[in-house]
Amino acid sequence: MSTVRVIRDILDANDRIAKDNAKLFARSGVFVVNLMSSPGAGKTTLLERTIEKLAGRLRIGVIEGDIQSSVDAERIERHGVKAVQINTGGACHLDGNMIRDALDEFDLDALDLLVVENVGNLVCPAEFQVGEDMKAMLLSVAEGDDKPLKYPLMFQQSRALVINKIDLLPYVNCSVEAIEQRAKALREDIAIFQVSCTKGDGLDAWAAWLAAQVASKRG
Amino acid sequence: MSTVRVIRDILDANDRIAKDNAKLFARSGVFVVNLMSSPGAGKTTLLERTIEKLAGRLRIGVIEGDIQSSVDAERIERHGVKAVQINTGGACHLDGNMIRDALDEFDLDALDLLVVENVGNLVCPAEFQVGEDMKAMLLSVAEGDDKPLKYPLMFQQSRALVINKIDLLPYVNCSVEAIEQRAKALREDIAIFQVSCTKGDGLDAWAAWLAAQVASKRG
Repeated sequence: MSTVRVIRDILDANDRIAKDNAKLFARSGVFVVNLMSSPGAGKTTLLERTIEKLAGRLRIGVIEGDIQSSVDAERIERHGVKAVQINTGGACHLDGNMIRDALDEFDLDALDLLVVENVGNLVCPAEFQVGEDMKAMLLSVAEGDDKPLKYPLMFQQSRALVINKIDLLPYVNCSVEAIEQRAKALREDIAIFQVSCTKGDGLDAWAAWLAAQVASKRG
Repeated sequence: MSTVRVIRDILDANDRIAKDNAKLFARSGVFVVNLMSSPGAGKTTLLERTIEKLAGRLRIGVIEGDIQSSVDAERIERHGVKAVQINTGGACHLDGNMIRDALDEFDLDALDLLVVENVGNLVCPAEFQVGEDMKAMLLSVAEGDDKPLKYPLMFQQSRALVINKIDLLPYVNCSVEAIEQRAKALREDIAIFQVSCTKGDGLDAWAAWLAAQVASKRG
């Protein structure tokens, strides 16, 4: 049995579980976002700001994926939103099975939006479905504008690209135009948002767009 | 055959190849560094600055690991140093086999230092030996100070931690002291350097320490 064959089998088994998760989500009418980025791009901070913008309009739940620690779930719960922490214990991504187990902790019928914050990793999470309605990715301008050239699958898989930390642009070598052009070359319909989660720029546009995606599922 | 068993077999097979690589490196007296970080922490820029500091004192070669593109090898070769680009075609880390294949491109006897720049990923590269004398990691202050809590294996495996982009400290929420304290809790003997690759701070100390490691192998 070759390594490639084994990996194929793992991905196929995961896809079956992800499809079962998707059926559960459809039945409850909950919109699920799989949020991915490099370590430290600001996923949890974006989530905190997004929750603040949408609180009262949407009922939100969060699944936090980390190799170790529960600091992110604790941050989210301070905003009055239920957060379940998954510790992968070494694994570099979340998969359908981990999400299925975490779902026992939620009343899905009481949610409009469930955000799955993946392990910080610009590679492996892009290969694993969890049953999500859309993948979204976050890129910090401090990471540079060459990331679409080096990590193309992540950009191809993402319906939305949130470019974060634009307040750092005066101090780093990064062209937002280059990021946008390279991302669109990989996926023409990618929705792009420029934000600063610490300063607040751009968050209204992102939150409004996300709310519209959630509404479109409920028809 | 369980997934865990398969992964164990993959790691064991890799360790055997890595040991063969290490024998080759020992025979040639070349010191090998496996350089790891998140995407966009500044590995290639650190390498460019390190080459400038050590050129004339050490004969240096570089292996560049990326999922796709050859932009990093091109950047390195502009400094008059031989660089071989490995494209993993999706794989999230370099392994011993990929390095063995790349070694055919080098005259190891004509090198003092070979740097392997791994795929940008704070998880998987820490699990795979390539035959290196030491692993070193780079962390950008823009990633925040909670990374040792979330990605402990990477810090435990690294003999050196280079904290980069310290020129951004006035603009980001990050305590270098917290990083240092948390990294030392994971590995007491980790050597820590604070640098700004764009401004030049701290690079002399890092380059001098690295040159001393290279010299210690040759005895």
